[in-house]
Amino acid sequence: MDIIGERINGMFKDIREAIASGNPAAVREWAIKQTKMGAAFLDISVGAGARDPYEAMAFLITEAQSVVDTPLCLDSTDYDLIEAGLKLCRVPAMINSCHADRYKIERVFPMAVKYEARVIGLAMSEESGIPKTSDARAALAMELVAAADEYGLPMDNLYIDPLILPVNVAQDHFIEALETLRQVKFMSDPAPRTVCGLSNVSQRCQNRKLLNRTALTLLMAAGLDSAIADATDADLLDAVAAARVLLNKEIYCDSYAELYKTAKHRVIS
Amino acid sequence: MDIIGERINGMFKDIREAIASGNPAAVREWAIKQTKMGAAFLDISVGAGARDPYEAMAFLITEAQSVVDTPLCLDSTDYDLIEAGLKLCRVPAMINSCHADRYKIERVFPMAVKYEARVIGLAMSEESGIPKTSDARAALAMELVAAADEYGLPMDNLYIDPLILPVNVAQDHFIEALETLRQVKFMSDPAPRTVCGLSNVSQRCQNRKLLNRTALTLLMAAGLDSAIADATDADLLDAVAAARVLLNKEIYCDSYAELYKTAKHRVIS
Repeated sequence: MDIIGERINGMFKDIREAIASGNPAAVREWAIKQTKMGAAFLDISVGAGARDPYEAMAFLITEAQSVVDTPLCLDSTDYDLIEAGLKLCRVPAMINSCHADRYKIERVFPMAVKYEARVIGLAMSEESGIPKTSDARAALAMELVAAADEYGLPMDNLYIDPLILPVNVAQDHFIEALETLRQVKFMSDPAPRTVCGLSNVSQRCQNRKLLNRTALTLLMAAGLDSAIADATDADLLDAVAAARVLLNKEIYCDSYAELYKTAKHRVIS
Repeated sequence: MDIIGERINGMFKDIREAIASGNPAAVREWAIKQTKMGAAFLDISVGAGARDPYEAMAFLITEAQSVVDTPLCLDSTDYDLIEAGLKLCRVPAMINSCHADRYKIERVFPMAVKYEARVIGLAMSEESGIPKTSDARAALAMELVAAADEYGLPMDNLYIDPLILPVNVAQDHFIEALETLRQVKFMSDPAPRTVCGLSNVSQRCQNRKLLNRTALTLLMAAGLDSAIADATDADLLDAVAAARVLLNKEIYCDSYAELYKTAKHRVIS
């Protein structure tokens, strides 16, 4: 279970201010903090308000890479912006994200192969929106799986996102997401990896962290391999560590909880 | 998800001392505390050291019933002791437990029907021990299901226990227990209820409560209806409340976590 740290994102005030002022302290601090807690990737998003998104993306990438060697996950709906970012990444990155629409696949998958990047493929399309049923989501996921074969993207580099919606407005969607994960893992061999935007499950809910960690536990049992999440939430990481032991993915030792909360990548300054 | 409060048990020092001295304070206190936190049943066990188990069982039942109207779950391997206890219960109780051996079924099931009691049926037998695989456990569970039909025990009164072992000594058993639950719910219609002795999963482990609540979340997704557990562990109850919302068993409201931690039965003194 890989955590993709969600915190370097212009939707957070301190990152938005760092982009506006050019003061890199907050970016560096979150890059180090998330890496030390064991993040496998760092999500990088300039957010909606940046004056020059290209300059902002370059700033966030450069500053993160100045303090850690953790791979980055470039998060934007503008694929030219993502490609500009990929050119700056020192280690292969992740592209967040690609819908299951043909014209988006044609833009994203060759770019992923060229830069050896991973791709988050969403189980939705512009035509279908977010399908209600797991069957329809799994069908869209399978289009992404077929496209990976077609374009020569290694299956290990495709991460299917079953789509997580807030439980207070779309409560019946969560069990569909669980079932989508099971189907995606069952329907193809080799199976793609899986990922989700975890915090979405608890948008505008009470006890957000409780919902997040309980959801992640349930998602892991259904086949989730990674999640964009708060990589500094110790209780979340503890739940992941315990689920890994219980699901027999990691051998029990007395320090299982501490071991999971340690750096997987290097802090270089 | 019903919690069967585990605390009135002679294996705990304060209950053992209450039995020895005849001072009912600890028994009453735990009966009230567990009921207030929402326990659906209270497990009652005299433990191994009681001088007169019959006197001790009567003492625990009488004292618990003097302060709450929560149904009791009588826990012993001595069925005559359980029957003596059933005669004292003011509301139908639960029998904990019956192996899938024919001679035990013949003793327990007619007694359960006579006293309108529920039965915890273990997916193990003296001959097989605790089978390694979920298939073998489910087969034993089906013998208990068939026996319920045979003896006229309502299927809602049969609780199959898939057997939970400590994760530090039998780590690969937990996923077999999850699969047993899925099979038991899938293989019969109407399906029996399900239960487990939760705290066993973390015996002699570190971060016991973390393992317990993570295990319970995973077990719920596989079909667990109830658990013998620490009914006063607020974090455990929060995990149950969140899983109920995520699995769409309970409609989300902002007070979902508080609502689950409220009394389901009455404190009468």
